[in-house]
Amino acid sequence: MDIEIELNKRADFFNKQLEKFLDGGHPESLYNASRHLPLAGGKRLRPCFSLISCEAVNGDIIKVIPLAIALELIHNFTLIHDDIMDKSKLRRNLPTVHVKFGEASAINAGDLLFIKAFESMHSISVDCQVFKNVEFGFIDFIKEICEGQQLDMDYENRKIVNEDEYIEMIRKKTAVFFQFSAEAGAIIGGGTKDETNALNEYGLNAGLGFQIWDDYLDISSDETTLGKDIGNDIRNGKKTLIAVHCMNNVEGSDKQLFDNIFGNKSATEDEVRQVYDLFKKSKSIDYAKDTALDYIKKAKNSLEKISDSDAKQLLLDLADYSIKRNK
Amino acid sequence: MDIEIELNKRADFFNKQLEKFLDGGHPESLYNASRHLPLAGGKRLRPCFSLISCEAVNGDIIKVIPLAIALELIHNFTLIHDDIMDKSKLRRNLPTVHVKFGEASAINAGDLLFIKAFESMHSISVDCQVFKNVEFGFIDFIKEICEGQQLDMDYENRKIVNEDEYIEMIRKKTAVFFQFSAEAGAIIGGGTKDETNALNEYGLNAGLGFQIWDDYLDISSDETTLGKDIGNDIRNGKKTLIAVHCMNNVEGSDKQLFDNIFGNKSATEDEVRQVYDLFKKSKSIDYAKDTALDYIKKAKNSLEKISDSDAKQLLLDLADYSIKRNK
Repeated sequence: MDIEIELNKRADFFNKQLEKFLDGGHPESLYNASRHLPLAGGKRLRPCFSLISCEAVNGDIIKVIPLAIALELIHNFTLIHDDIMDKSKLRRNLPTVHVKFGEASAINAGDLLFIKAFESMHSISVDCQVFKNVEFGFIDFIKEICEGQQLDMDYENRKIVNEDEYIEMIRKKTAVFFQFSAEAGAIIGGGTKDETNALNEYGLNAGLGFQIWDDYLDISSDETTLGKDIGNDIRNGKKTLIAVHCMNNVEGSDKQLFDNIFGNKSATEDEVRQVYDLFKKSKSIDYAKDTALDYIKKAKNSLEKISDSDAKQLLLDLADYSIKRNK
Repeated sequence: MDIEIELNKRADFFNKQLEKFLDGGHPESLYNASRHLPLAGGKRLRPCFSLISCEAVNGDIIKVIPLAIALELIHNFTLIHDDIMDKSKLRRNLPTVHVKFGEASAINAGDLLFIKAFESMHSISVDCQVFKNVEFGFIDFIKEICEGQQLDMDYENRKIVNEDEYIEMIRKKTAVFFQFSAEAGAIIGGGTKDETNALNEYGLNAGLGFQIWDDYLDISSDETTLGKDIGNDIRNGKKTLIAVHCMNNVEGSDKQLFDNIFGNKSATEDEVRQVYDLFKKSKSIDYAKDTALDYIKKAKNSLEKISDSDAKQLLLDLADYSIKRNK
């Protein structure tokens, strides 16, 4: 079983449903802006987490489609708004929504996807009380994503962030999304309490591993050239696990050097390189890599209570895949 | 029964519940930004529409509070995002959220209020199926508000807008909010189908009257001085009912004059005055006033199927009050 083939199979199936869901709408200007990003592709990882979790508890994936659509719309809504906040110009190799359609329409298009996610949730055909519980979890994790996004912004302006704070930030910003996707897929699929708990834990740990791997990938893929992104992250004082580990472990003159350069908007290329060398000296890059791998291992261990099946194997492979992917 | 006293009584009661609901939260930076506008006062018209509609069907207003909070949060979320879109600096005599907390936090604070509105909806204690129906209506009207906001922006760039298009725009942008507030208050209050339909119609027409009166008030309160706002609306080609009526009724050289100036960003004071004179010549200001009054009359007539009570009288007075208020 090739994980990429299996994911693509599900993504293709999902994309057809998503296109149908996003078709039409008036005024066209708004609906075109709102379709721009979600129909520009993407791996559909969150929908896949929910679909395969449903399969792993022997559920009917057709029932999960409205949830999967809602998850992808929330993901895209956050990307559209984040890109405005970060003033990003490109996403998925296309101009961002606010660059193409203007900032006002982009804010509005994000809001529309937000509400259309709830519209999609209402098509889940489960018992009313189950619907209400699932939707409450949906609301809760979106609230945490807003909080995580704010923590991420707040941390950029803080000198010191400890590792627990960092983990709490990425838990809210990223991991709760995977946690909910997996758990809700299992609930809608009719999983037992043990199964849904297991998939909750699986999603959480895979999400944490995924985000830390992202930090690691950014820096390791860029190792020889130390490209613009790394430089900017260092100049902006971006609190990745690598930076957090380093700032809490360097001492003496190294600490002084770190404090002087990290978060200094006008740091030179050479200074950026010096911080990068501190990352290596403090073994922070390896630490981030090992931590990501630990979470992925935990995610896989969470699946012990799930009966063996092709779907379970896919979840195991999906956890590994989350930290194999390229940017 | 004094309408202002009665509204204030309900607003005071509502405000206590709202403050409680918005208390706390982490990170403080996000929650402070999200509380800034909703706790800065306001007439709480939408909550009042829902509370008094509930009273008019003999319902228990305690049950409507979570809905009323959700309505006010959605209202504030749209204001925060609209102020970013319009680059407005002041709201309720305070700096707007993006001016005080920065644009990124303001987008995020708006998103948080959006999701917290859904959180509040989940506290409505009604039968699950009733909850689902009410929430679906909630989703639907928010979607229409996004569409209406876009139509409003799109119309600024269009030369001609006809009256039906204008009414459709304000229906979506404003009236559906009052329509849903009144109807949902009645549903949660246990109203009959006839009663909830009547209150739906009441809210829709009061909302249309309210918005058109807003257009009228802007221009009539400013008549002698023709203040900055009117000037800017004319320069931006803002499609109020007054402008829409005028553009569809002027002829010959007047039409040419109108077309040359209306929507011309660099129109002089004198040119603005010439368009204003056309508004008067075409009787567009009177037309807008009469149209607003007609909708308010329709709103009041919608209440025929509601049994007489103090609450019904309040709704009748509330309709009149919507077009008596100052800016």
